[in-house]
Amino acid sequence: MSSTEARRSIATVCLSGTLEDKLTAAARAGFDGVEIFENDLVASSWPAKEIGEHCAELGLSIDLYQPFRDFEAVPPDVLARNLRRAELKFDVMAALGADTMLVCSSVSPDAVDDDDLAAEQLHLLADRAAARGIRIAYEALAWGRFVNTYEHSWRIVRRAAHPALGLCLDSFHILSRGSDPAAIRTIPGEKLFFLQLADAPRLQMDVLQWSRHHRLFPGQGAFDLTAFTGHVLAAGYRGPLSLEVFNDVFRQADPAPAAVDAMRSLLVLQESLGGTDLPPAPALAGPAFVELAVDDTAEPELAKALHGLGFAETGHHRSKPVRLWQQGDARILLNGSAPAGGASVGAVAVESADPAGSARRAQRLLAPILPRGHRADEADLSAIAAPDGTSVFFCRTAGESWLGDFTVTSAPGPSAGVTGIDHLALTQPFDHFDEAALFYRAVLGLAPEPVTEFAAPFGLVRSRTVADPSGRVRVALESALLRRGDWAPGVREPQRITLSTVDALASARRMRELGAPLLEIPANYYDDLDARLAPPLLPELREQSVLYDRDEHGELLHFCTVVLGGRVFFEVVQRVGGYAGDGAVNAPVRMAAQRRARAA
Amino acid sequence: MSSTEARRSIATVCLSGTLEDKLTAAARAGFDGVEIFENDLVASSWPAKEIGEHCAELGLSIDLYQPFRDFEAVPPDVLARNLRRAELKFDVMAALGADTMLVCSSVSPDAVDDDDLAAEQLHLLADRAAARGIRIAYEALAWGRFVNTYEHSWRIVRRAAHPALGLCLDSFHILSRGSDPAAIRTIPGEKLFFLQLADAPRLQMDVLQWSRHHRLFPGQGAFDLTAFTGHVLAAGYRGPLSLEVFNDVFRQADPAPAAVDAMRSLLVLQESLGGTDLPPAPALAGPAFVELAVDDTAEPELAKALHGLGFAETGHHRSKPVRLWQQGDARILLNGSAPAGGASVGAVAVESADPAGSARRAQRLLAPILPRGHRADEADLSAIAAPDGTSVFFCRTAGESWLGDFTVTSAPGPSAGVTGIDHLALTQPFDHFDEAALFYRAVLGLAPEPVTEFAAPFGLVRSRTVADPSGRVRVALESALLRRGDWAPGVREPQRITLSTVDALASARRMRELGAPLLEIPANYYDDLDARLAPPLLPELREQSVLYDRDEHGELLHFCTVVLGGRVFFEVVQRVGGYAGDGAVNAPVRMAAQRRARAA
Repeated sequence: MSSTEARRSIATVCLSGTLEDKLTAAARAGFDGVEIFENDLVASSWPAKEIGEHCAELGLSIDLYQPFRDFEAVPPDVLARNLRRAELKFDVMAALGADTMLVCSSVSPDAVDDDDLAAEQLHLLADRAAARGIRIAYEALAWGRFVNTYEHSWRIVRRAAHPALGLCLDSFHILSRGSDPAAIRTIPGEKLFFLQLADAPRLQMDVLQWSRHHRLFPGQGAFDLTAFTGHVLAAGYRGPLSLEVFNDVFRQADPAPAAVDAMRSLLVLQESLGGTDLPPAPALAGPAFVELAVDDTAEPELAKALHGLGFAETGHHRSKPVRLWQQGDARILLNGSAPAGGASVGAVAVESADPAGSARRAQRLLAPILPRGHRADEADLSAIAAPDGTSVFFCRTAGESWLGDFTVTSAPGPSAGVTGIDHLALTQPFDHFDEAALFYRAVLGLAPEPVTEFAAPFGLVRSRTVADPSGRVRVALESALLRRGDWAPGVREPQRITLSTVDALASARRMRELGAPLLEIPANYYDDLDARLAPPLLPELREQSVLYDRDEHGELLHFCTVVLGGRVFFEVVQRVGGYAGDGAVNAPVRMAAQRRARAA
Repeated sequence: MSSTEARRSIATVCLSGTLEDKLTAAARAGFDGVEIFENDLVASSWPAKEIGEHCAELGLSIDLYQPFRDFEAVPPDVLARNLRRAELKFDVMAALGADTMLVCSSVSPDAVDDDDLAAEQLHLLADRAAARGIRIAYEALAWGRFVNTYEHSWRIVRRAAHPALGLCLDSFHILSRGSDPAAIRTIPGEKLFFLQLADAPRLQMDVLQWSRHHRLFPGQGAFDLTAFTGHVLAAGYRGPLSLEVFNDVFRQADPAPAAVDAMRSLLVLQESLGGTDLPPAPALAGPAFVELAVDDTAEPELAKALHGLGFAETGHHRSKPVRLWQQGDARILLNGSAPAGGASVGAVAVESADPAGSARRAQRLLAPILPRGHRADEADLSAIAAPDGTSVFFCRTAGESWLGDFTVTSAPGPSAGVTGIDHLALTQPFDHFDEAALFYRAVLGLAPEPVTEFAAPFGLVRSRTVADPSGRVRVALESALLRRGDWAPGVREPQRITLSTVDALASARRMRELGAPLLEIPANYYDDLDARLAPPLLPELREQSVLYDRDEHGELLHFCTVVLGGRVFFEVVQRVGGYAGDGAVNAPVRMAAQRRARAA
């Protein structure tokens, strides 16, 4: 079976809300089935039969009922109680129409370390189950008292030798312990009853806490789920690919986008396994433009700032209140049709080798396609919405270009040395950080760099950059580590448009002459810089309020404007050698300075 | 020196905001000094000299400049650079007026494992420092590359034998590794230059991550800081008790209450060390009453519900729009002077053996004292504000009682078996959970039970109960594990008033007859209860929507009303045997049912 034929399922525990909320979200995102998490059923006012009927109406099969805990390898009196408990759950499953039950390896103090006894009792349970048309999928919890590896659970299942008893494999339980999953290939496919997929960041912590709080959807963490799932499919597994992700954030996030995020993770996992008909991501060749939505107050403020930065207004749109500002290859559109709310990044356009192909892929990956009003003689740009609401356009600037929609009003003016757009930094809502990284990776084919963290004046900030292989399309995703309360003034952290120059000091000097609203950096920063890195040209950096960093590859000189229109600012960077980062070490100083400038 | 003579300091890294915000908050909370965290200074627009002057104006000494990293045991070229770096920082310290610098044990790849070299180079640094009137406090980081225990740092300091070189001890670095702090007593007091205090929960995780994200103020975590500090004082330490707490929540919380929380933690730590003049917490003897603030819409809804629960309106306040409802020893006041906003717990009154003494202690522990308008012939109740804004009254119901302020309007009516108030559950704002536990422990002398966690329908909930030794005053503090966003409907989770009965089933029946708005529990819950615990009287529990739990000590039968006035609900509990908990296992089912009842 190729992986694309596999059915896709999700455990209800992945999503927030009541069982009704969860089922609706799963169905809308296109899942074929669900695992019913017992606690969700217990809290529901719908009887099991109605839940089953409701799932059928939604087009969802019930692929698993879970979890049944602490069953095996117990004394006779406990066994009798456990069998009674199981029979009552079989009643629920019959009403639901679920035919597979997950049994987790025991953590009970009642259990003994005896594989023969475990196999014998699981055989008995499988017999009872088979009489009801039910199968038992036995799973080794990573923290199981005696059984905590898939090899061990397989030894017991093999010993029990009952056709209604097989294995449930969970990628988290196996990969979190560092087990080699290759031996899964040696297990007969018909004994693999169920496959649960979860990714996770590499954390040095108690595995139970890691599992219950920090799982992620495939592709959002550090596990190699392509290799893992490959082993399971190679063994002959024919069941669904099912997500079981316990995550503190998803548990309280809107289930509709969370379910879409989940589905997207499975589609991309299946693509990585080959044999998919998902259109590949066309190559990208840098940002074509950034469009700022500006209201009446913000528009003149932004126009003045762009002038100060050496940009010239070179055209206006033929049918919309949009002005084109240009310097080198950097193009900024000011769109004056925005409602009140200052300024914000409304859209990012990327140069695609095949804009229509990019849009087709995006649609298949459940990205919302944005309706675009345009006249017959105007360019038809394909646009989708990123998780934070930013529009992403796919376009070509050369040839039959979107530039044709603009009337040229003037030639570029006296430049201040800006050559293009280096990258963007977009602040993500707290609950959409991991979703955003997966979106840009899946839909645009950008590669995520490692997550970094720094202490900003009002709390910790997480940052992750996604970039195409050439490094020409780079988006830094930033988010507060914890959702902020009333105290923190940076609830809506500003968005950044970073421009390139080949001479930061010269650009800064020229921009000051032109009246750019550049940010003043305090003397303490330069005293510390002297102590830490003793950079060349320190007096000039100090005089021009240019920030500095160095890594093993090269240097970064960068400076910023104050925050404009309440939400955006420009940064200008000069990269010397192969400096790889974005100067995050200087972000707290920059943020404190912007806060002062705003207060002033 | 007794511990109460010790000066109290706080590192600026403990608090959120700019350096200016932090210093103001520290001074207002009554700290004597601060540790200046270098990053805070670097981001400040005030030159070091002005910061020093500002601290002096605020009455704050600068007790430590920190941290200076990766100095010792390096090759000569690195040493030369490190000495230059140190001299530049001595310049800053001179301008600040700070005389002690923290040097952390190295984590640098440049360093070698050579105690003699480390001692020699630290001696050199101390020489340079002494020439500037500065002392070096050397600290073993728990994750130091070669030096990561206080015993090891002490061996090096002793070997260096320089009067300007001593130790900095940090409770986190020592206790997180499980080191025995008793040997601190063997270090000469004059070589203990600085003491940093931090508590932490016991977490099984990477010690660097644990340290940087999860430290707590003393008394909020699991470390025995009384014993630890006792050893340091016994050794003859004469410097300040200084807090250095890295915590994700405090980093983004309003620094004013956070600084008060910090100061309160030190005052209670000093009390635990003896020799303090803090008035002890008088014994408490149960709740006297709970006052609900109700607006015009909520008042009739609450009155109807109280009637249904078997309460009778037995009096009204002689000068205020407050009605007294009574059943057994349970007294509920409805205060109709609240602004619009439904119903909420406005005040909790506890019976104190010495109300004035309770209030004196609260005031000394920086609890806000609430002004109380009362007529000359009315009771003068001492009232303070808890961190979530709830008023706490200290009173005596017997003798010269607050009850005298009420005109008796009728005798208690037909009871439904309620005998008193079992406990309250108050939802805490996300950033005030640990502060609230410390407040009740410090101010009221209640003992915190362990933190528990459960999965509610819209996200994880943390819960911690604080109780007096007799168990008669119990407050369950509950909070979302993460601050919630727009999706989660339970942003303001309801507050709970839990009443006692000796027969839950009889009370439920009677309350139904009286028309109480009791919550319906779904059949799935009872099917699961049958499978899990097979309780006696299952059909009756099911019929009356009574929840059930059992632990090794006894049983709990409990049932609830729907949420009233948008924010509060009543619960009725019957404890059988020594059942210790509050039925948290049933909370998700209850919360889903309340959500349904609200939507209906």
